[in-house]
Amino acid sequence: MANLNGFFNPRSVAVIGASRDPDKVGYAILESMTEKYKGEVYPVNPNAKSILALKCYPSIKEVGKVDLAIIAVPKGFVSGVLRDCVSLQIENAVIVTAGYSEMGDQKSEDELRKIIKGSKTRLIGVNCLGVLDGHSNVDTLFLPRSKLPRPKGGNISFISQSGAFGSVLLDLIAYEDIGISKFISYGNQTDLKDVDFLEYLGNDNKTEVVVIYMEGVSDGRKFMEVARRVSRKKPIIIFKAGKSKAGSEAASSHTGALAGSYRVYQAAFKQSGIIEALSIEEMFDFSKCLELGKLPKGKKIVAITNGGGFGVITSDFMEQWGLDPVKISKSSEKKLKTILPKYAGIHNPLDLIGDADKERYKKVLEILVDDKCVDGIIVISLLQPVPVGPEVIDVVNEIARKTDKPIVICATGGEYTLNYIKKWRGRGVPIFAAPERAVKAIWSLVKYSEIKK
Amino acid sequence: MANLNGFFNPRSVAVIGASRDPDKVGYAILESMTEKYKGEVYPVNPNAKSILALKCYPSIKEVGKVDLAIIAVPKGFVSGVLRDCVSLQIENAVIVTAGYSEMGDQKSEDELRKIIKGSKTRLIGVNCLGVLDGHSNVDTLFLPRSKLPRPKGGNISFISQSGAFGSVLLDLIAYEDIGISKFISYGNQTDLKDVDFLEYLGNDNKTEVVVIYMEGVSDGRKFMEVARRVSRKKPIIIFKAGKSKAGSEAASSHTGALAGSYRVYQAAFKQSGIIEALSIEEMFDFSKCLELGKLPKGKKIVAITNGGGFGVITSDFMEQWGLDPVKISKSSEKKLKTILPKYAGIHNPLDLIGDADKERYKKVLEILVDDKCVDGIIVISLLQPVPVGPEVIDVVNEIARKTDKPIVICATGGEYTLNYIKKWRGRGVPIFAAPERAVKAIWSLVKYSEIKK
Repeated sequence: MANLNGFFNPRSVAVIGASRDPDKVGYAILESMTEKYKGEVYPVNPNAKSILALKCYPSIKEVGKVDLAIIAVPKGFVSGVLRDCVSLQIENAVIVTAGYSEMGDQKSEDELRKIIKGSKTRLIGVNCLGVLDGHSNVDTLFLPRSKLPRPKGGNISFISQSGAFGSVLLDLIAYEDIGISKFISYGNQTDLKDVDFLEYLGNDNKTEVVVIYMEGVSDGRKFMEVARRVSRKKPIIIFKAGKSKAGSEAASSHTGALAGSYRVYQAAFKQSGIIEALSIEEMFDFSKCLELGKLPKGKKIVAITNGGGFGVITSDFMEQWGLDPVKISKSSEKKLKTILPKYAGIHNPLDLIGDADKERYKKVLEILVDDKCVDGIIVISLLQPVPVGPEVIDVVNEIARKTDKPIVICATGGEYTLNYIKKWRGRGVPIFAAPERAVKAIWSLVKYSEIKK
Repeated sequence: MANLNGFFNPRSVAVIGASRDPDKVGYAILESMTEKYKGEVYPVNPNAKSILALKCYPSIKEVGKVDLAIIAVPKGFVSGVLRDCVSLQIENAVIVTAGYSEMGDQKSEDELRKIIKGSKTRLIGVNCLGVLDGHSNVDTLFLPRSKLPRPKGGNISFISQSGAFGSVLLDLIAYEDIGISKFISYGNQTDLKDVDFLEYLGNDNKTEVVVIYMEGVSDGRKFMEVARRVSRKKPIIIFKAGKSKAGSEAASSHTGALAGSYRVYQAAFKQSGIIEALSIEEMFDFSKCLELGKLPKGKKIVAITNGGGFGVITSDFMEQWGLDPVKISKSSEKKLKTILPKYAGIHNPLDLIGDADKERYKKVLEILVDDKCVDGIIVISLLQPVPVGPEVIDVVNEIARKTDKPIVICATGGEYTLNYIKKWRGRGVPIFAAPERAVKAIWSLVKYSEIKK
């Protein structure tokens, strides 16, 4: 297994190709690297004395050995710089520079491979954003924080083959207030490959969920083997791009990936315990839910709602996703009758009626949490009806903290609702803006529960 | 055909059951009705002298004939009030009060039907929110504007069987800054039915798209007949709830609807030219796109992007939704080569490369808009890369205004991107936060284009 610690916890970092021009990639990387990271940072630029108040070095040879070299020089200079890194025995290098196999230039990429052959130097890239560590704050991204805020530290790690996709991912992670452990944008896999990252994250104590954006896999057999091992310990979520003919052709000109047959991928995902996400939204919703680590015993799910129509829709989605909209047990029915208005029917979905207040939600939830016939609960709380306020969500969170059963919330609406969702994002019960998202999130827990068995 | 003008353009309205208590439904309705509506409003409450600075009447008989009566009294009083309305020859009544067939009480609902039989009085309800008109500002909704902002006037009309669903719909409509013509929440269909509303909206000059949330249909054959006629003139989008076993059971206890077999519904939708939405999101995305009225000649769609990964994903979704990711024509290829960097491949999806600025977008779009082999364009503009700013979206809008070909934008990201989407919401090119949404929106245009043929 490749030891990638130097990429994520380096004591010293050189930014080779640092620039004085704020519009240049080499400036943005230096800025990212110096924002929160606490170790030593050395800009390398033969034409500058200092950048961002840091002394500049004419070449990496003047800096000497560092734990991590970030290479962002024009393509013509990359091999020379890399040779210097190898001779300095620098163990970790991120090459941001693009224009290799993804543009048809396999030869130059092979050359880089030859340069590091037999050395201690390992590469991430070429044609990538590199790495971001939510804890050590290593940040090789050439995207300014003003456009791409960085997420807080946490327990979900993301691997993205595509840089642009990776940057959007990060942006959404920050927006959703998800905490990340490690983020890796690996581009052309000139040296280190998807499977190396997966294996590393599988053994990383700070990573509880691994999320992957994949166009093509480097070595299917090896990847499956590692995935099978990792998925027993922690969930792996993959969003596969290049499923279609046009898509796989696009992928090959994008990262030089051979996307291959989607059916083969799907079978492989299934066999190795990987959960497939079919959209960016699903990647997030699944990971948010899985991070909490509360797995249902089975797939018997009850939905409660203060809006009848939303109960109906949620049932439809539950059936579509193979969840069991279990009948309310006799013993719970008896208890619920004492709480709900007498005209309320006791069905699943359970309509608490439009005038439900937080007390009614609380009492109903307490009954369902105690019911052995219920594996998980979807709470639909529409904030538009008159007597319901967002305090319902606080009540749900209070109960969710005390139970091992997964609970998710759905609140659909405009500004008022979205502001409340924002408040609860990133802490406590996962909260979703649409019923199908809540249903799919619970499905991902049921799925991982089955994988673990 | 029922003449429903009195519901949407009344000169005088009585709120029967108006209340002094701000927590009561009867207060909220009076407040809604007086907010922006310019006609006469008469609160009816035997125990109050005035509410919201309006003189109160002890009964509707003291008010006399009005164009619209909103009945929000407790169930026990409804039939008496309705009898008064009939004897006053009031032609339009909305009954908000619930507790009828949806709770198993068919008898009381039959009684209401008997009361209006042979009279000029037509009912919307029972168990409903009633109506909102985006132009006349008639507003019978008992939900305060602080929680449920009202949308602006426009050209899309919404029909919802469920009140709660309807209120969420309105909330989302306002948030998305969509302009509405008419909104109808019709509940139990005691008198006026789904098909009456559809027929009325089909002939309404201010309605260009009809969007329906349906649990069960009142008379399938009649509905199809009317839908077939209306769909030739304007698009009909339906979101059907109660597709599953559990869902249809829930629907029957919710609005007393017989949801029936989903397969039968699907076949009927297809035969009558109805576009089915499979989620709330789709309802909106389709209607926003269809409102613009630019229909593609065929399904040959080109996607352009500044993020390769997003091109790949978009191609996948395009294939999934049956769009044709057409090859770039020879003549366009030649022109594009003079504009794009020389290492850029000329494929569909067209990767403008991460450093694409607004000029590059503009020139590329001008070429594609002029190309006879292109029926529509999806512009993916990631705002995270360094040189791209939101001005790209302005450029797209500028070009979109001048062409008959549909163009949609996808911009995925966090706060920065979402704020920009917000700015463009409700005007110009439809803009979506996820590639699959842009693809599906274009699909709805292709679909309606086929329906019209």
